[in-house]
Parts: sequence; C-alpha cells; structure tokens
Amino acid sequence: MIQSCQHPSLICSCKLTQPLKSLLLFKCGSRYVSKTATKTVSEFEYDAPSMKTAVPGPKSQELLRQLGEIQNVGAIHFFCNYEESRGNYLVDVDGNRMLDVYTQISSIPIGYNHPALIKVMTNPNNSAFVNRPALGILPPENFPEKLFESLLSIAPSGMNRVQTMACGSCSNENAFKSMFIWYRNKERGYASPSEQEVGTCMINQSPGCPDLSILSFMGAFHGRTMGCLATTHSKAIHKLDIPSFDWPIAPFPKLQYPLEEFVRENAQEEARCLEEVEDLIVKWRQKGKPVAGIVIEPIQAEGGDNHASPDFFIKLRNIARKHGCAFHVDEVQTGGGTTGKFWAHEHWGLDDPADIVSFSKKLLTGGYYHRDELQPDKPYRIFNTWMGDPSKNLFLSEVLNVIRRENLLEEVTRSGKALLQGLYSLQTQYPHILSRARGQGTFCAIDACSDATRDSIMLKARNKGLFMGSCGEKTIRFRPALVFKEYHVHQLLNILNDILAEHK
Amino acid sequence: MIQSCQHPSLICSCKLTQPLKSLLLFKCGSRYVSKTATKTVSEFEYDAPSMKTAVPGPKSQELLRQLGEIQNVGAIHFFCNYEESRGNYLVDVDGNRMLDVYTQISSIPIGYNHPALIKVMTNPNNSAFVNRPALGILPPENFPEKLFESLLSIAPSGMNRVQTMACGSCSNENAFKSMFIWYRNKERGYASPSEQEVGTCMINQSPGCPDLSILSFMGAFHGRTMGCLATTHSKAIHKLDIPSFDWPIAPFPKLQYPLEEFVRENAQEEARCLEEVEDLIVKWRQKGKPVAGIVIEPIQAEGGDNHASPDFFIKLRNIARKHGCAFHVDEVQTGGGTTGKFWAHEHWGLDDPADIVSFSKKLLTGGYYHRDELQPDKPYRIFNTWMGDPSKNLFLSEVLNVIRRENLLEEVTRSGKALLQGLYSLQTQYPHILSRARGQGTFCAIDACSDATRDSIMLKARNKGLFMGSCGEKTIRFRPALVFKEYHVHQLLNILNDILAEHK
Repeated sequence: MIQSCQHPSLICSCKLTQPLKSLLLFKCGSRYVSKTATKTVSEFEYDAPSMKTAVPGPKSQELLRQLGEIQNVGAIHFFCNYEESRGNYLVDVDGNRMLDVYTQISSIPIGYNHPALIKVMTNPNNSAFVNRPALGILPPENFPEKLFESLLSIAPSGMNRVQTMACGSCSNENAFKSMFIWYRNKERGYASPSEQEVGTCMINQSPGCPDLSILSFMGAFHGRTMGCLATTHSKAIHKLDIPSFDWPIAPFPKLQYPLEEFVRENAQEEARCLEEVEDLIVKWRQKGKPVAGIVIEPIQAEGGDNHASPDFFIKLRNIARKHGCAFHVDEVQTGGGTTGKFWAHEHWGLDDPADIVSFSKKLLTGGYYHRDELQPDKPYRIFNTWMGDPSKNLFLSEVLNVIRRENLLEEVTRSGKALLQGLYSLQTQYPHILSRARGQGTFCAIDACSDATRDSIMLKARNKGLFMGSCGEKTIRFRPALVFKEYHVHQLLNILNDILAEHK
Repeated sequence: MIQSCQHPSLICSCKLTQPLKSLLLFKCGSRYVSKTATKTVSEFEYDAPSMKTAVPGPKSQELLRQLGEIQNVGAIHFFCNYEESRGNYLVDVDGNRMLDVYTQISSIPIGYNHPALIKVMTNPNNSAFVNRPALGILPPENFPEKLFESLLSIAPSGMNRVQTMACGSCSNENAFKSMFIWYRNKERGYASPSEQEVGTCMINQSPGCPDLSILSFMGAFHGRTMGCLATTHSKAIHKLDIPSFDWPIAPFPKLQYPLEEFVRENAQEEARCLEEVEDLIVKWRQKGKPVAGIVIEPIQAEGGDNHASPDFFIKLRNIARKHGCAFHVDEVQTGGGTTGKFWAHEHWGLDDPADIVSFSKKLLTGGYYHRDELQPDKPYRIFNTWMGDPSKNLFLSEVLNVIRRENLLEEVTRSGKALLQGLYSLQTQYPHILSRARGQGTFCAIDACSDATRDSIMLKARNKGLFMGSCGEKTIRFRPALVFKEYHVHQLLNILNDILAEHK
C-alpha cells in the first residue's frame, strides 16, 4: 500500500521526487494493493470496475442513433443504467461498470443511489416532489427550517443570507444582478430611482439600464447564459457567435507546479495579474462602464484547473474593497467539500469575507450566499417562478447528514493526498507524457503533453473502466464524489499506470 | 346552473351583453348553483374553500419573520401546507383552504397531489430522482423513449427536435443562442469561423461576439437572466439597474375587447405594429445590429394579458421569413393546455411553422422545440451541466396520460367558456369597477378600474378563499390548473360577485 505523506498541509509540500522516490515510483507491472480495501468500501457499493464491451457499446450506439433524431448528440459519451450504478461506480447500458471520477461534471456529492437518498425519495410525505412551489411567493411550511438545516448550516463565514436558484448559470446571473442593484443604490445614495431611470430601463437604455460591468478573468467559466457568458473565457466554442458585453477581462495567474517549488516565481506572476486588475478597474471607470463586481473561481476548473495562492485572493478582495466593487466567489464547481473544506475559499483565511458566494452542482440546488447589504431593497428584483426546487433541499439535508456522519471531508483530504502523491509519482515516471500534477483535496488534475495524448489516455482509461473528465487544453481533471476512498485512488492509479506503460 | 354558450369558437363571439343578459347577470345575492357539483369534482379533491383566519394567518406571519432573516420576503403571500393541498385547493399553514386559480404562477398542470404523480414519485425504481445526470454527456437509458413519450408526443407542428433545460429563462437564453448561431452560420455560408472570430470571441469582441439583436415587444416578458431581460419590457422593477443590450422593441397591439366587437379597429392597430416591426428590422440592420430573431408570446401574460389576432401572428411570421430572422414563440406561460389547445400558437393556423417554441412551467421541465436547421452544428454550443432534469420528464409523461385519460383539454375549453361568460356578466353588472374581460380557454383576465381597486379585490377574495394572480397595471389574471371544472368556475364567480356587491 502506498505510504502516506504526513505533512499537515492540504497540498502536500514535501519534495515527493526526493525521499519518497523509491517508495512511490511505479515500475511497469507494479501495483497498489489496498490492505483496507474491504473495510473502506461502503457496503452498498461494488468493489471494482467490470468491462464487457468497448465504450460506447452496441446498446449505447443504438440509443445514440435514436436520440440523434432529436438532438445534437456529439457530446454524449454513453448511455447509463443509473438503477444499477452504486457509489463510485457508474454502470452503462451495455453492462460496463466504471470507476467514475467525473461524477456528472462534478455534481454527484455522495455517489450513485446512496441508500440515505433513496429513503428520502420514497417517503410519501415528501410532497415537495410532486408540488413544486413558486418559492418566492408561496413557500412550503418547512422552507425556513430546511434552509437553516441545509444551506445555512454550511454557510461560509460572514454570509447570513442565501437565495436558492435552479442551476449554476441562474445563480451567477442573479448574483450579478444583485451586485448591479447594490452598486447603483450606493451611487444614488439609496434614494428612489428617478423618473428618467424608470422610463429608460423599460427600453434597455441608460441611465435605467446603466453601463456597468463585471470584471472577470481569462480562463474563467461562470456559465453560458448571456450575462454569465460575458464573464466566461475558457473555450471559444462556448462564446462564438453570441453577442456580449464590453466588460474588462484580467489575466489569471499562470502558475508553475508544484506550487511549493515555485513560490517566488508564482508570487511575481500573481502580482502582475493584480496590477492589471487595478488598471482595468480604473480604465473601465474612465470609459464610463464602472466595475460593479469582480467574479472569480477559487480554482479555474473548465479553464484547466488553474490555481492561485491564498495571498492572491486576499489581495484581490482588498482591491475590490478599495475600489468599491463587490467580490463574488463562484464556487459552483469547487463547493461542496471536494477540496477538503466545504468551500474552497475557506482555505484562504479571508478576514474580510466575500460579498457573494454562488453554488450549484454538488449542492444539488443552485443559489448564492450573500452579505446583508447585497440583498435587494425591494421584492421582485431578484425573482423567477420557481427560484430553486425545495425537493433538492430535502436531498441536500440528507447529503449533509451523510457527510457529517461518515466524516467525508476528512476522507476527501486523505484520498486527495493519496491521489496527488500518485499523480506526482506518475509524472515523475512518465515525464514525456505527464506534467503539472496539482490539486486540493480530491479536486486534482494533471496535464498531458498534447490534447491528442490526453484524449487517447482518456479513451483507453474508459475502456479499462476508469471514467475521467477533461478541461483546459490538455488537462485531465479528477472530480470524484466525496465517497472516493484511498481504495479507489489505488484502482485509478493502477489503471492509469497500465495505460501509460503501454503508451507509445 | 349557468347556461352554456354553444358558439363553437374558443373565444365566445356571441354578443353576451344582449341575448344572455337576463340569464347571466348577477343580482346581489344571486348564486350559481352547480347541479353536477359532486360528479365533476375529482374524488381526491375538497369540495369548497374553507377559511379559518385572515390571510396571512399567525403561523404564516411567524414563518415570514423567520425567513425574513435570510431573504427578502416582500413578495410572499403566505406559507403553504402542500401535504394537505388537493386538486384546485391550496391549503395554508393556518388551515385555510383556498380555491387556487394562480397555481404557482401558472405552473401546476393537474392540481396538487394528483394521485398519479404520487405513484410516480414513490416508485423506488425511478432512480432519476436521486441520480441527476449530466444529460448532455451521460443520459439515462430511457431518455430517448421518455422524450418521445412526453415532449415529442405533444410537439407543435413542424417541430421534430427538442432540447430540455432547467427553467423558462434558461430555455429562452439557449433559444436565443440557437438563433444567433443559426444566423451567423447563414452569414458565413456555413464555412468554418475565421481565426479572428475565434480569437475575438474570447474577449467579448466582434466579429467573434457579433452585434446581433433579438426583436421583442413592449409589454413582453421572456425571463430575467440578462439575455432574456433585454427582451422583457413589462415592469420597471424587473429591469432597473441591470445593464442591457441595444435591441429593437416593437409596440405590441393594444386591442379593444371583446375582440369580436372591434374587428376593424383592432386590425388597424395590428397593421400599425407590424409596420413598425419592419421599420425596426431595417433600422437595426442599418445600425449594424441585424435582427437574428423575433421573440413573442401568443398572449402577453406578465405584461397584462394582451391578445392579438391569428392574422397578426401569421403576418409577423411572414415578416420574419422575409427578412431572414428566426421566429421564436415563447409558450412558457401559454403552453401546456390552458388555452384549450396544447400550444396557444396552434390557434393561429400557421402554414409556415415557428422556428423555435420554448416552454417551462406546466411542462414541469423547461426547454424548447426547434426546426432541424436551428440545431447547432457542433456539440457543446448549447450545453450546461444538467440540461434539464429527467425526473421532471417522468412526471410530465404521467401528466400527459392524465390529460388524455380525463380529456382535460375539452374540460378547459368548457370551463374557460363558462369563466369568460361569467366575467362578461360581472363587468356588465359592475362597469364602474371591471372592464376588458378577455381570454382563451381558462387563460382569462379582467381589468379593474385602478391598481388599488384590483389589489383590494384580490385581498378580499383571498380572505374569502379565492387566490388569484395579478398582471399588467390593473389586471387580474386567472391561471387555474387543467382540472378546473365548471363547478370551480361557479365558486370563483360567486366569491367575486359577493366582493363586488360590497365594494364601495
């Protein structure tokens, strides 16, 4: 079994390539063997991948043909048998069982068909499932209680208020709107809007629809609806042909990994980016399009798993404060425990909390926390028909119970350490193929030497029963569920090692 | 029992104020009595409102205080006991049982706690509830089958393809994106995008992010995310302080009601608006912001239940065709059977189908139908993590079964006729208070003489057990579920009549 690094920091900072070399490096055919395998695997789960066909198999291909008559199916990997899937294992319609470390684009918190969730679903008293309310006007009796029990019990420090929404994009769109409303209320000294403002807003014109902007970062992903898309800069396919706003875009630090080995170089790079942020804020103010808010991911996910230091984020928060911009941390992908803390930005140790923290995916419901002053002054300013779905809050309450009962954040920290160590080891053994292993908790990634190599590794892995995700230009991203144990790390590393050993 | 008008058209065109006067007019204290009451009420439903406190009662007020610590609660009417609600009757936490003709902003298709839906929910084999997939990459085995069985079985004519989304706003945002992509592909002759386009789109600049526009109508409501909001022009509170796009906004016809009595005047008004549409298309092309698509509601709902004739919409579709703009019919509120047909625009008799028809609310899932050519040419152009929620498709399948089994569209036509006749009658008896009764199916509305009077009538009705919605400046809108029978129409009219008789 792999020897665990005992360093207390989350991103293991010991020089893995030196003392652990002999222990960690794979040789062709060497295997991880987990002594504790049977103990760490949840009872309801399978114990290993099991492959019957190449993926996609014949049944998937037939279904793909059928669905192709209705939709563009170019992004579909295969069709799933969700009834048979369990824990970390996703079963497809051809009977292939894969270790799933992509988990529906990082949105399955505690694995497939967790018995605790099945129990919630089959409780006939949970009428929230069949009577979806318009939460903004007619909430159910238990809505405040369920919010306190679920979302507010894990609220980031400084955040007393939460607004639910249906998905990540709606969460960010409404978070942006809250920042615009807050900013304009400040500008007009909290007076009532003028007649001119009320009149012009109806026809999309200034001053009612003001020329305000949101500052975002190159490589960011904040969603695909038109407001969010104006802050998304990860891939051209997301943005091509869609009209956008002239909003400022700052460089996100391009760091060298492992972070601990390039502290000075990385600090310089971060300083350069922060300087650019301030320049852009000044420039856009001069252009008459002041920056109402800054939005940033704690780790740029879709853009290639790009990290920055706590120091960078603390200084960015200070810049937002200095220039009167709201500070919005987008935790849609990083939130929910996968970094070892419930919110990735809790690793920063901010003294001055963020103004807005948005979430979705593993939280099952979308939404955002915000400070008191970011709450709109009037009803119906942040509003839509459903404003989320309380049936998702019921599941979230139970997910949180499971996370606490099974100490899953500690598990994530432990598994994440093993995973990152394994990735360091692989890139040391295969330096011509892999580089830049990085991660926090199980939110890990590694780069291939090219996009073609990355894609080839991923396809081979899938056929061997390991289903991973990609991001950036040539990155493999790991997004396992919170029930991903060291046992599963070893399965993953063994499969990857086999593929790399055969790789030409 | 009220005598039914036998005219075959959906909007009853007989001169109600003349021949039916003696039969229909209320006198103070006169009542509708439904002979068929016990037969038409579904077995699982209550038979009448039952009020215990003023609304909101003490329990609602206490919960309002609790939720007020977390959210702006200014739009909340009261808290609900959804477990106890049945069919057309919404029960609140203080034990008040109200006839609900607003149905969660028109989003409950077949009433509360329909036994058929409870059965779907408690089926432990429906793992879609606990394993929400990323539909765009890993759909469940039964996804094509469920789409054919649900959404495609009710597809508007000419629409072979459907894309699910989580909510109405996401549906319209992605429909707009599809129109932009389609328009630009036409413009570049279906060639690959240039390097310059690919490069500039990453920084929100033209030509990659082109200056295209969507033409919308004054009074329209298409949602509140930033793309949708640029086409929404119903109330200032939705739009104030939010940056927008410089897109063309045409006048929506302001018709006189009943439509049948003002055919000539209304035709003139519609011609004026259509002329303006063409002028705007030309003007925005000259401004360098060509109109890629026209979006319109069959009946402007949030904007005040504004109708237009089939002739208007047919001519508008022809204008879109002539100028090469896509034609998008937003059926988020009108869709799902409430007008007596499954889609309100099916009343028009279009020869040349729409390009896009979007939906949400009563369909339980958001999404849009589209013609083949509106399908994006590449994967990941229309995409997000969830792309809807297949658990909603399961419910929708069952809702459609109930609609067919119980002939609910016929019921809607029958109830709608009774409702509109009753409203005509009320406005004849109380001409100083009510005017402009109008509707299609049960999608009905009536204007009060002022917003204050409207609000006062609605509050009094609520305290007597009738829960209605408002829209526009001084309109009451009726949005009952499809299980709303003549029996319920009579309850509604009796309560309204009592309030109007007492009105000072």
